[in-house]
Amino acid sequence: MISFANDYAQGAHPKVLQRLAETNLEPLAGYGEDKYCESTKSKIRALCGCPDAEVELLVGGTQTNAVVISSMLRSCEGVVAAETGHVSSHEAGAIEFTGHKVLTLPQREGKLAADTLKKYLSEFYADENHEHMVFPGMVYISHPTEYGTLYSRGELRDLARVCRTYNMPLYLDGARLGYGLMSRGTDVTLRDIAECCDVFYIGGTKVGALCGEAVVFAGGSKPKHFMTIVKQRGALLAKGRLLGVQFDALFTDGLYFELSRHAIDMAERLKELFRSRGVEFFIESPTNQQFVVLENSKLDALRQRVAVSVWQKLNGTHTVVRFATSWATTAEDIAALAELL
Amino acid sequence: MISFANDYAQGAHPKVLQRLAETNLEPLAGYGEDKYCESTKSKIRALCGCPDAEVELLVGGTQTNAVVISSMLRSCEGVVAAETGHVSSHEAGAIEFTGHKVLTLPQREGKLAADTLKKYLSEFYADENHEHMVFPGMVYISHPTEYGTLYSRGELRDLARVCRTYNMPLYLDGARLGYGLMSRGTDVTLRDIAECCDVFYIGGTKVGALCGEAVVFAGGSKPKHFMTIVKQRGALLAKGRLLGVQFDALFTDGLYFELSRHAIDMAERLKELFRSRGVEFFIESPTNQQFVVLENSKLDALRQRVAVSVWQKLNGTHTVVRFATSWATTAEDIAALAELL
Amino acid sequence: MISFANDYAQGAHPKVLQRLAETNLEPLAGYGEDKYCESTKSKIRALCGCPDAEVELLVGGTQTNAVVISSMLRSCEGVVAAETGHVSSHEAGAIEFTGHKVLTLPQREGKLAADTLKKYLSEFYADENHEHMVFPGMVYISHPTEYGTLYSRGELRDLARVCRTYNMPLYLDGARLGYGLMSRGTDVTLRDIAECCDVFYIGGTKVGALCGEAVVFAGGSKPKHFMTIVKQRGALLAKGRLLGVQFDALFTDGLYFELSRHAIDMAERLKELFRSRGVEFFIESPTNQQFVVLENSKLDALRQRVAVSVWQKLNGTHTVVRFATSWATTAEDIAALAELL
Amino acid sequence: MISFANDYAQGAHPKVLQRLAETNLEPLAGYGEDKYCESTKSKIRALCGCPDAEVELLVGGTQTNAVVISSMLRSCEGVVAAETGHVSSHEAGAIEFTGHKVLTLPQREGKLAADTLKKYLSEFYADENHEHMVFPGMVYISHPTEYGTLYSRGELRDLARVCRTYNMPLYLDGARLGYGLMSRGTDVTLRDIAECCDVFYIGGTKVGALCGEAVVFAGGSKPKHFMTIVKQRGALLAKGRLLGVQFDALFTDGLYFELSRHAIDMAERLKELFRSRGVEFFIESPTNQQFVVLENSKLDALRQRVAVSVWQKLNGTHTVVRFATSWATTAEDIAALAELL
Repeated sequence: MISFANDYAQGAHPKVLQRLAETNLEPLAGYGEDKYCESTKSKIRALCGCPDAEVELLVGGTQTNAVVISSMLRSCEGVVAAETGHVSSHEAGAIEFTGHKVLTLPQREGKLAADTLKKYLSEFYADENHEHMVFPGMVYISHPTEYGTLYSRGELRDLARVCRTYNMPLYLDGARLGYGLMSRGTDVTLRDIAECCDVFYIGGTKVGALCGEAVVFAGGSKPKHFMTIVKQRGALLAKGRLLGVQFDALFTDGLYFELSRHAIDMAERLKELFRSRGVEFFIESPTNQQFVVLENSKLDALRQRVAVSVWQKLNGTHTVVRFATSWATTAEDIAALAELL
Repeated sequence: MISFANDYAQGAHPKVLQRLAETNLEPLAGYGEDKYCESTKSKIRALCGCPDAEVELLVGGTQTNAVVISSMLRSCEGVVAAETGHVSSHEAGAIEFTGHKVLTLPQREGKLAADTLKKYLSEFYADENHEHMVFPGMVYISHPTEYGTLYSRGELRDLARVCRTYNMPLYLDGARLGYGLMSRGTDVTLRDIAECCDVFYIGGTKVGALCGEAVVFAGGSKPKHFMTIVKQRGALLAKGRLLGVQFDALFTDGLYFELSRHAIDMAERLKELFRSRGVEFFIESPTNQQFVVLENSKLDALRQRVAVSVWQKLNGTHTVVRFATSWATTAEDIAALAELL
Repeated sequence: MISFANDYAQGAHPKVLQRLAETNLEPLAGYGEDKYCESTKSKIRALCGCPDAEVELLVGGTQTNAVVISSMLRSCEGVVAAETGHVSSHEAGAIEFTGHKVLTLPQREGKLAADTLKKYLSEFYADENHEHMVFPGMVYISHPTEYGTLYSRGELRDLARVCRTYNMPLYLDGARLGYGLMSRGTDVTLRDIAECCDVFYIGGTKVGALCGEAVVFAGGSKPKHFMTIVKQRGALLAKGRLLGVQFDALFTDGLYFELSRHAIDMAERLKELFRSRGVEFFIESPTNQQFVVLENSKLDALRQRVAVSVWQKLNGTHTVVRFATSWATTAEDIAALAELL
Repeated sequence: MISFANDYAQGAHPKVLQRLAETNLEPLAGYGEDKYCESTKSKIRALCGCPDAEVELLVGGTQTNAVVISSMLRSCEGVVAAETGHVSSHEAGAIEFTGHKVLTLPQREGKLAADTLKKYLSEFYADENHEHMVFPGMVYISHPTEYGTLYSRGELRDLARVCRTYNMPLYLDGARLGYGLMSRGTDVTLRDIAECCDVFYIGGTKVGALCGEAVVFAGGSKPKHFMTIVKQRGALLAKGRLLGVQFDALFTDGLYFELSRHAIDMAERLKELFRSRGVEFFIESPTNQQFVVLENSKLDALRQRVAVSVWQKLNGTHTVVRFATSWATTAEDIAALAELL
């Protein structure tokens, strides 16, 4: 069975696991107050060009979204997101569980446009009844998006400008941030993100760690008593080292970027393969998730040998299928797939 | 620095880490649907003598308490606990965050007595105003308790009887369950717990794992859509294997019990040492947490060389201090402490 | 100033106020346990043809929606509603505040079609990832809708059938139910509603009371400990008589229906007036809310003399405006408006 | 049946009802934006000597407590209260429903002492583990308390001083404030309360209104978007006039104080009666609630003719019983009771 099912099918990158083993017997402080957490935070601040940023390590993506969003919103505010945004569609109502509405806006290729946001905000405040509605309190975007697409630097800056005009934090979900940063042709750097966003996270779970997401609060946006808030949401690990050591390994010698680049290289080969076989793309994705259209009977045959994700039915005869690459994808996997197609 | 600070200062037991490494490259299903999770669940069902039990793996203790309690209570119900119960005192309001009150009752040595519970329940229902109060919907106990003490089988059965009379689930927090089961002189087995409790968890984080708690729903008590509830609370790991593989290792060849027994052996040596040096015990604990009374200046000196937990001030000159052992405590640690005392 | 702004601009129907005065000095039990509440409940059960229904009196519409919906949903479930549904758009996130998502579906003239619901439900359960999404746990409709439109008996039955197939309660928001029942040409009776819906409410605030909504749980659907749940949400009145006496007056000698019919009669005259003056209707409404399109400068002039509700901008030059009638609307009001148009 | 059951057994003071009737047909703006609400707010600001205070009208006491407390706390904060505080014991978990813990402290005669508060706060911040606990974010007191007792001006100022030192708002629940202010011998005025408290409410429901509580935010403490928060909690009345008109009547010609004084006068006669008959007082209360100890068989006989509240069992043979007076209590009621005793 060849696996293109997702980017979290294997454990951690071997170097990450190795660091866990090397540090295993050291007695360390709990709850994220150990030296590896500290070291990770310094490295991330440096990479972001943000000496004042505050970095916090959490366990998973849905958890991170719920903790960050609920701790930054006031009680009658909601978070604005594209209707395809993960917080809206695939997090089992985790945001609503904390008491807040997800306010959805139309999207294009998974992205929220600054103009769409601006129009919504100006109409909201012009509405005579807006005090009976949920106030937009924050903007959520994902980069890469749920469709593997990327914002350009210009698009990010436009969104940031609208958010600042309305005094709303901009939050970027970077569950797969490494793949976005290493994508060929992107003009967005980590520093750009730290400049445009008030808060964002650098995904670990889907980029080589066993678990873990690193939240970066730029410019003083970290809520008071954050550690207690994290504990209150059941998100505080006793052995915080599990997160600290892993991220410390990922940000040693550029491992995070290197393994992300590898996944992108594999995705590019995959795209080439699909193109050469005349497989239709559902969307043009520059990252590690590739969405293609397969005829249903072909899909059924393929799934005997290859693990993929069924994304959505396109029509009665065709299905949109996702192929994902990761640090664990090998040239042999691509070759084996080529043979099967 | 010798560490008796807690039972989560090191990483995982080496055999647990080894299994993570051995299985690291296998592509597995996400979200707890892999074969290691399955295997763990079977082993736990067998150990509990409960073929129908449903087992679920979560990440941490506060998270587990919040998920289990909030998913089993109705909206105007609260959870009854000893006033020293972890859910009441040291979980940052995680239960209240889910909308439920913790109803506290008096305790003795960290334990809730069946009579105390019975008296409270009969008075509650006799109160003409009880419909204006929070209904008791569930009973929470910890075993070992926050003071390292243990219920006897008779005490557990008495509590279970009261709970059944009032049709309330009994929930046991087993964050340190291994140490309770391996304590010398306890008459409580895992099967007794499965018989008396409607739901309980077998702690991993504090008993040799990097993270992880195994929740056992005995007799059909698992709430509907539990996986979605877990996701909604931000508690679902994409790489569920991290929990499955660790628990599978812990329940292979009795590792969980063996490492717990080791911690108990070390605790017994510690007790002997304290006794031989005339150190006063704050409470008689048969498990891996030992609470002793130290003169403040002695404590200050000791903390230069030994990591311990300051529990509470006893008075102006003395302090209650906790020494905890674990799988990682060595005979050398005890010997080194002996020299320092 | 003539008022067509809404149906809650005046106090209560004089007969309602009179009953409050007549009963004012009687000492009565608090919290809804007085004889007027009892009498109201009997009358409503009889009118619904539902001897087993349980009736509860609450204060306002948003409160009622939040209490009913949150007390009937499980924690990972959401309520399905038309995207124009009041719970989705104009209740300030009251449903989300209780931890639940509003799952919105496309609508036509404010109505949710059985086919739309069925398609959504069958696709939801067919989706391989549905356990990562919010489960649909209940269906919300309003009758009359936010646009004054009405379901036919056939449409209601179709919705009920889909709900039963999926084992989901159907909930009808009857904030303006009187106007729906008294509409000319409707084929829906109170008994039809009690047959089709698991729970619904008969609106008082907008139909002649100072405040108050009567919730009807048909067929055993009332959640356990409902009074305590109501108290927990801050919705329990100490002087429950305020609700009991008002509804008792409204359901004495058919006052509720009579005053609703009056509002409908006035609305019909209004429609005639608009038609005769060539005013364009935005939607065809058979109830007490009439939506028409006015040229902006005309609207500005009109608002000097007539209170209306600005509904939405149609385009740069025209606006959708709502005229509402009520028990307090007089033939003189219509005549005065005719002069102004 | 003579009623001493509580202070909300009758409707509204006749003058209040009369104003509702007089203003009934005036078309007014909804949601508390009418002229009577405005007038009420001005009058309250003047009475408090607080021209900058912001006043908001809500419907009931539990609702007010939940809205005020939840809108002023941060998410990991709880509200500190005496263990007998209404928010802790008799509000069905309304505070916890909003996600916040009630942190209870020991009391004396229903009152929280400044020293008790100070000790708790200094110990809390000295505890090395306090970040794992709920942060105290606000202090709740009731005046009169649940036992009818009153704070002195000195006690209030001491509490305020501790609160300011720790930067926590002090919140006073004045469900029965009128009776406190009119109590013989109290040295606390409305201005004192406005000076000491950051927020408090002036109770209407139990002091002559059908419903209604007036919240006073002194010194800029009103949360942003408060009206939307009120709506989100289901606490916003469409016909806000119901509250505005009633409070406007209560604060016209000192009616609120006059009717409160009447209740106090009646309570003093009651006390005299009890004293003269040798009935034992459970507590010395200077307000409209009197708590006495009755032999059980006497109580049973009495309840045939007099409505009272059973407060708590004192022992196997005696019961604590509450007699409450109000604006509606008459000299005849007292005389009739005297005959029965």
